[in-house]
Amino acid sequence: MKGRIGIGAAVAALAATLSAPAFAQAAEQVSETAYIFNSLSFLMHGFLVMWMAAGFTMLEAGLVRTKSVATICLKNVALFSIAGIMFYLLGYNLMYDGVDGGFIGSIAWWAPDDASALAGDFGAGYSAASDWFFQMVFVATAASIVSGTLAERIKLWPFLLFVVILTAIIYPITGAWVWGGGWLAKMGFADFAGSTVVHSVGGWAALTGAIILGARKGKYGAKGTVHPMPGSNLPLATLGTLILWLGWFGFNGGSQLAMGSAADVIAIAQIYINTNLAAAGGFLAAMLLTQIIYKKVDLTLALNGAIAGLVSITAAPDTPSMGAAILIGGVGGLLVVVAIPLFDRIKIDDVVGAISAHLVAGIWGTLAVPITNPDTGFGIQLLGVVAIGAFVVAASAVVWFAIKAAMGLRVDEENEELGLDRAELGLEAYPEFGSGSQAL
Amino acid sequence: MKGRIGIGAAVAALAATLSAPAFAQAAEQVSETAYIFNSLSFLMHGFLVMWMAAGFTMLEAGLVRTKSVATICLKNVALFSIAGIMFYLLGYNLMYDGVDGGFIGSIAWWAPDDASALAGDFGAGYSAASDWFFQMVFVATAASIVSGTLAERIKLWPFLLFVVILTAIIYPITGAWVWGGGWLAKMGFADFAGSTVVHSVGGWAALTGAIILGARKGKYGAKGTVHPMPGSNLPLATLGTLILWLGWFGFNGGSQLAMGSAADVIAIAQIYINTNLAAAGGFLAAMLLTQIIYKKVDLTLALNGAIAGLVSITAAPDTPSMGAAILIGGVGGLLVVVAIPLFDRIKIDDVVGAISAHLVAGIWGTLAVPITNPDTGFGIQLLGVVAIGAFVVAASAVVWFAIKAAMGLRVDEENEELGLDRAELGLEAYPEFGSGSQAL
Amino acid sequence: MKGRIGIGAAVAALAATLSAPAFAQAAEQVSETAYIFNSLSFLMHGFLVMWMAAGFTMLEAGLVRTKSVATICLKNVALFSIAGIMFYLLGYNLMYDGVDGGFIGSIAWWAPDDASALAGDFGAGYSAASDWFFQMVFVATAASIVSGTLAERIKLWPFLLFVVILTAIIYPITGAWVWGGGWLAKMGFADFAGSTVVHSVGGWAALTGAIILGARKGKYGAKGTVHPMPGSNLPLATLGTLILWLGWFGFNGGSQLAMGSAADVIAIAQIYINTNLAAAGGFLAAMLLTQIIYKKVDLTLALNGAIAGLVSITAAPDTPSMGAAILIGGVGGLLVVVAIPLFDRIKIDDVVGAISAHLVAGIWGTLAVPITNPDTGFGIQLLGVVAIGAFVVAASAVVWFAIKAAMGLRVDEENEELGLDRAELGLEAYPEFGSGSQAL
Repeated sequence: MKGRIGIGAAVAALAATLSAPAFAQAAEQVSETAYIFNSLSFLMHGFLVMWMAAGFTMLEAGLVRTKSVATICLKNVALFSIAGIMFYLLGYNLMYDGVDGGFIGSIAWWAPDDASALAGDFGAGYSAASDWFFQMVFVATAASIVSGTLAERIKLWPFLLFVVILTAIIYPITGAWVWGGGWLAKMGFADFAGSTVVHSVGGWAALTGAIILGARKGKYGAKGTVHPMPGSNLPLATLGTLILWLGWFGFNGGSQLAMGSAADVIAIAQIYINTNLAAAGGFLAAMLLTQIIYKKVDLTLALNGAIAGLVSITAAPDTPSMGAAILIGGVGGLLVVVAIPLFDRIKIDDVVGAISAHLVAGIWGTLAVPITNPDTGFGIQLLGVVAIGAFVVAASAVVWFAIKAAMGLRVDEENEELGLDRAELGLEAYPEFGSGSQAL
Repeated sequence: MKGRIGIGAAVAALAATLSAPAFAQAAEQVSETAYIFNSLSFLMHGFLVMWMAAGFTMLEAGLVRTKSVATICLKNVALFSIAGIMFYLLGYNLMYDGVDGGFIGSIAWWAPDDASALAGDFGAGYSAASDWFFQMVFVATAASIVSGTLAERIKLWPFLLFVVILTAIIYPITGAWVWGGGWLAKMGFADFAGSTVVHSVGGWAALTGAIILGARKGKYGAKGTVHPMPGSNLPLATLGTLILWLGWFGFNGGSQLAMGSAADVIAIAQIYINTNLAAAGGFLAAMLLTQIIYKKVDLTLALNGAIAGLVSITAAPDTPSMGAAILIGGVGGLLVVVAIPLFDRIKIDDVVGAISAHLVAGIWGTLAVPITNPDTGFGIQLLGVVAIGAFVVAASAVVWFAIKAAMGLRVDEENEELGLDRAELGLEAYPEFGSGSQAL
Repeated sequence: MKGRIGIGAAVAALAATLSAPAFAQAAEQVSETAYIFNSLSFLMHGFLVMWMAAGFTMLEAGLVRTKSVATICLKNVALFSIAGIMFYLLGYNLMYDGVDGGFIGSIAWWAPDDASALAGDFGAGYSAASDWFFQMVFVATAASIVSGTLAERIKLWPFLLFVVILTAIIYPITGAWVWGGGWLAKMGFADFAGSTVVHSVGGWAALTGAIILGARKGKYGAKGTVHPMPGSNLPLATLGTLILWLGWFGFNGGSQLAMGSAADVIAIAQIYINTNLAAAGGFLAAMLLTQIIYKKVDLTLALNGAIAGLVSITAAPDTPSMGAAILIGGVGGLLVVVAIPLFDRIKIDDVVGAISAHLVAGIWGTLAVPITNPDTGFGIQLLGVVAIGAFVVAASAVVWFAIKAAMGLRVDEENEELGLDRAELGLEAYPEFGSGSQAL
């Protein structure tokens, strides 16, 4: 369970040890050991989650057309940069400071305070700086989902302005409700590592943006025809998926929030196993279903199946059995194969399939928690999904419309035809390949 | 030394500490610390080995022709997915449960059991779940070797069916003989991290498949001519090699199976060093030899040289001096430069050079163990190589022929000409590049 | 602070604990725990720095033209291989053994000595083998900088010969002055993780080489015109930058040289945070400045901005506040946008912008240390920058001219036109794309 509260096992071990005064000095040393393990878990798992930024970048660079590749690379690095700075300036304290069953934290920038541990009191359980690092790398994930869906037609700076609001305000507010100890947490809503708090939030923001922005020119023809715009570099998309897969061990494993006891490291090991099996289940299920439906295996859908499997298990990677993990991920993979053409049918143009993989599978994963975790219930899980969805859709819509009114959201038709790389960056991602104009 | 037995140092430390009853509580804490370190080693090194899946994918995607790139990506992610599920359903217990000097473990799916540690008894030394995760990621490596060799002409589903058998049955059986504590282990066969148990097993299965499947159309002409079919994306192949290099620190370092004592972490450090130097030696030796033979440096052969260096040191990364590690890896690099054209001469079409890099270097590395490790001998090492080779060739041949009879192994000529991506996946990996038909 | 001396907190904790004799046995165990944590930090952070080799390779492969891609891949793997072997044969002891306030260490190959820890005395604080691994992976970074600047016209073997000298002699000598405890260290020069010791050293060697080698044919025209030669694969360049970003957590975090106390892990967490924020500041500052100057955002410059931000914070990632880290990195990003066209104006052809990102930002970062670290001063920082710069320029020039006289440095005009890949390797990086001659 995420949050600043409750690193459980480590603190309990500390308390137990402290009750034996004759061993006070040894005990203090031991608690420092747990403190180091807990902080190390945040750091190691945090750098794995940071690596997911490269995963989203490669996935999206592989799935857009060549004329938009450099722009999507730029956006992904920029949003990761912005997320870190905004979470420092506003986001972290809005999400975690003094929420106390309510709706929102405090408005103040964050500053590390590890003074008590430096003075020899390890009761905090872990370094606050390590915790900030771990929570920070999560923020960019939500924004990366948006960049993929809206690729190839949204203007650069308006998109980045939305990212500023998303990472500084929208994500932290709904995060406060759950991981900050807010009203949903108090009611028993469970989302271990963020099927809803991270992935659905990004997905709702992307969905709202896609509706307001409209589809790419030429994507949908008359009489419901859909013009395929295939990804330009499938090994890059595959690399991106495998990076995400790796990073997800950090995403879910680090969300145990502690590694200072045997119980914690056992939980992390089980989380790694379930995370891997859910991804495998999602990939294989999507493969099989595309073979059945289309008589061919669609690599892009199968990759999204793996991601959907990962999103699905994220709400509860610790409680399912191994078989259940495969099934939970597998259902996620099936959902993505069904959802992607459905969104096309209603003319919502999601360039990389992120709404299906992150929002649809995120909802499924969140609702599936009570199956393996008796501490929550279907009703509160549904309430959490709906409440967070409603808030994110409403807040995002306000922001999207405000930006649209102030500076416009979409490049003009000529520039969309030309491609964002030439229009907004003045360069090409692959100047010497194929139809590239600068081939030497 | 791999296996569920013998984490040595940690358990010894525990025993020594427990003999001092006055410090029982502190001692228990200390042993929990070792337990956490040991489990952390499995998890951290395990995620590095998982990352090798991306290494194989990029290496193979870079070395096949563009018309087969998407398919090889799909196969690699699929085989990693399958390996995890099959090792859960059958493989792990077949390899590790109750082998006891024999030939085979038990037939039962695996379930984690860390109850004793949760009850405060850390005598197991590490979390069983963390060990499973680490052993699981090894399985896919063997299968990845097969996918590279047989690329560009084997049908998707028959290949995946072979992977099911390989990861559920063939790999676990020979694994049981060594790491499961079976007959070869009892006789003193030494293979620290799997030159034979992983790499040769994959190589033998690939060799058997390559013979049964035959060469790509047009690869070998009249009078012994070999038509070169160069890799389509060499930076991806380079990336793949560097990913494997990184992952190998996990592969070899984690095979120490413990990190809970100073002796263990010192051993891991030495293993990292030797692994790095062997890769360097293999790369540089292959570079130099191609310069001498061909008057040009062949990047593809040099990359295979690095991989061969890594495979060579894998049987004993802990015992050689640093100079010996360079030489062991260097010989591996030379072997690969010699072996690849030899396989071409006998018309065995190994698309990525995997038989040379994994099987030939794996045999060399296994036979070289006695040079630096006095606990084994040349005779038993040779017996292990031959016995495991014979079993894998025989078992693979049966499976390949059975699949061939049941559903066919090879795409028809027209589809091979067209490329597997269009024939089996209905898409292209790079639709806008070069001769791509969908260039916009 | 780098070096074999001063792992501070861990040793102090050990000393404090040993003063309580009644707890001697528990204390010894605890010190073994610190020993393991310290060594683990070297190993974990070391593998992250090793991964930077892939970062440089992808960055450079993405920024050169297609006809030089395979060669730059080969050079980067080769230089990483050479660096490891030369640091073993000569470099490490030249840098660290018996420098003692002087200019140079001893001439002897390195051999691991962890015997005292194996005998139960953990006073060394960490495994010498783990330290060697960590220091070794730094060496290649300096050489990677050179390869990027001189790409597309330097011959393969002369370049590699320079790498041998750089990694065996030049880098270790200036390294001895600072991290080896030499004269600059004694005077108070501070360079936590190598803004000068690693990045400027590589930058000076690259600058010297670029002047001696001359620009690529056709790069500079009459009347100061500059012919742009855009990078051939920008998603690869982006991937390379993100790999470097990830690896830099190891580069800076591991340079704390200890993780065995709460104080150390807190410092590492703060270093991770500042490293991330400096990279973000550098990327965003470069983006904004290119938008202002050119009315377009230049992805290549922005990526170099992130790298410059990382280089800038490297001299003192531990002392700045978070806001200061953003600013230090941001200035680095601005400098790179200004410096790259300046070098073009004076006709110094730096193919990937490495001199600007590593040397210019490295000087800035080194001079900025006193702003947040009162233990050093502007005068000594400037002295260090100048002294190391003078030595590296002089030594590099001697080596470059000697190699030029002995075997030539530059390919002939015809081969430069043809491209290094065909001229020196006899192959193409992307044979089937675009203007590739072997498209099937």
